[in-house]
Amino acid sequence: MDRFPVIIPAAGQGKRMKNRVNKQFILLQGMPVIVHTLRIFQAAGVISDIVLVCAPGEEDYYRKEIISNYRITKPTVVVTGGKERQDSVYSGLSNISDDCRYVMVHDGARPLATAELVARVAEEVRITGAAVAGVPVKDTIKRTDPEGYITETLPRERLWNIQTPQAFELKMLKRAHLEARARGFYGTDDAALIERLGQPVKIVPGLYENIKLTTPEDLIIAEAILERRESR
Amino acid sequence: MDRFPVIIPAAGQGKRMKNRVNKQFILLQGMPVIVHTLRIFQAAGVISDIVLVCAPGEEDYYRKEIISNYRITKPTVVVTGGKERQDSVYSGLSNISDDCRYVMVHDGARPLATAELVARVAEEVRITGAAVAGVPVKDTIKRTDPEGYITETLPRERLWNIQTPQAFELKMLKRAHLEARARGFYGTDDAALIERLGQPVKIVPGLYENIKLTTPEDLIIAEAILERRESR
Repeated sequence: MDRFPVIIPAAGQGKRMKNRVNKQFILLQGMPVIVHTLRIFQAAGVISDIVLVCAPGEEDYYRKEIISNYRITKPTVVVTGGKERQDSVYSGLSNISDDCRYVMVHDGARPLATAELVARVAEEVRITGAAVAGVPVKDTIKRTDPEGYITETLPRERLWNIQTPQAFELKMLKRAHLEARARGFYGTDDAALIERLGQPVKIVPGLYENIKLTTPEDLIIAEAILERRESR
Repeated sequence: MDRFPVIIPAAGQGKRMKNRVNKQFILLQGMPVIVHTLRIFQAAGVISDIVLVCAPGEEDYYRKEIISNYRITKPTVVVTGGKERQDSVYSGLSNISDDCRYVMVHDGARPLATAELVARVAEEVRITGAAVAGVPVKDTIKRTDPEGYITETLPRERLWNIQTPQAFELKMLKRAHLEARARGFYGTDDAALIERLGQPVKIVPGLYENIKLTTPEDLIIAEAILERRESR
């Protein structure tokens, strides 16, 4: 079986969380957020190894208190990230050898993904070369001017909330990141960099539950979803 | 004090809920969804009366089992709705006399709004004539072609997830609905009909918690949010 690494950016400061602790270390059901995320990939047979990207100074904490303490046994390297999420993914990419055909990226702060979703995205990338999880937008989405007046209601047809995991041909993602850095372009996800190259990216049906922990109410939601899963 | 009615469309079948019971009657913390919603407006001092729009045949159930049984004492009329949400709001509007200056609309399936949010929207409509609750979009939003390939990543600046409550000058909303009906236009919310008239609509900061119950995972989330509120 080929190597198929996952890059997990986990350097974000989570300013919108109103919490001084790195949001990766907040406890969900008694276990740090990042451990939930790592266990998804520990369980996902298709993933061969993990590249965990952390904030400068947190490397040892991740190695000892997270990976070793919580017995993440899949080969895992901890690398130092950059200022923005995109810089961190780039750091991760720099640590992956070119003999890998594919690479996956998954937010450290999405602890509610599943090994099954990882498998679906991995399957699709082998067909299309670029595949990302997403769910149809439920809400009405509008744009405003700087004063908060509505300028546009977006037609909801074929509009998706994009999630991770996202998977790409390694060469393609490296090229996309180099290109974006050269031009000073920052995207909110990796697919955006690929799209700029004109490469097709396929959406794979994700899970509404697979939220990114961003604001304090997200923690309540995540606790509830985990509790429900356990009680099944 | 002027009359300020709220129209609550509650006729939706909730097909995405995978449940044969009308989603308004699903129990949250032991109480039907719609009762939670009605209690928000029972508590909101600014609202004078309630126009509850139900599916044909459900009128008596609402009157007896909901309004009377759960002691909704604010003046409430139950009217019969139409096929789409927009038709139901129109039914509600037809039951409001022209001496009201403003009207509010709130989804029956948004039981997590608060009286404080209702007050904020009511305050803003008195200034701008049209005000809707919304929260900044957190996710990356993309559009796909019919085959599921991404065609566009929407710039996230000033993009909002729109909620209810929404409030408008009554005359303006009536005109917007008549215009939409004449042209066969259906919008996903009332603001969309107003926007078509070229009228400015202002966004009022809503609450991330104020979700619309659409899919089964939303029920788990709503339960968790209510439990958390009670434990405060």
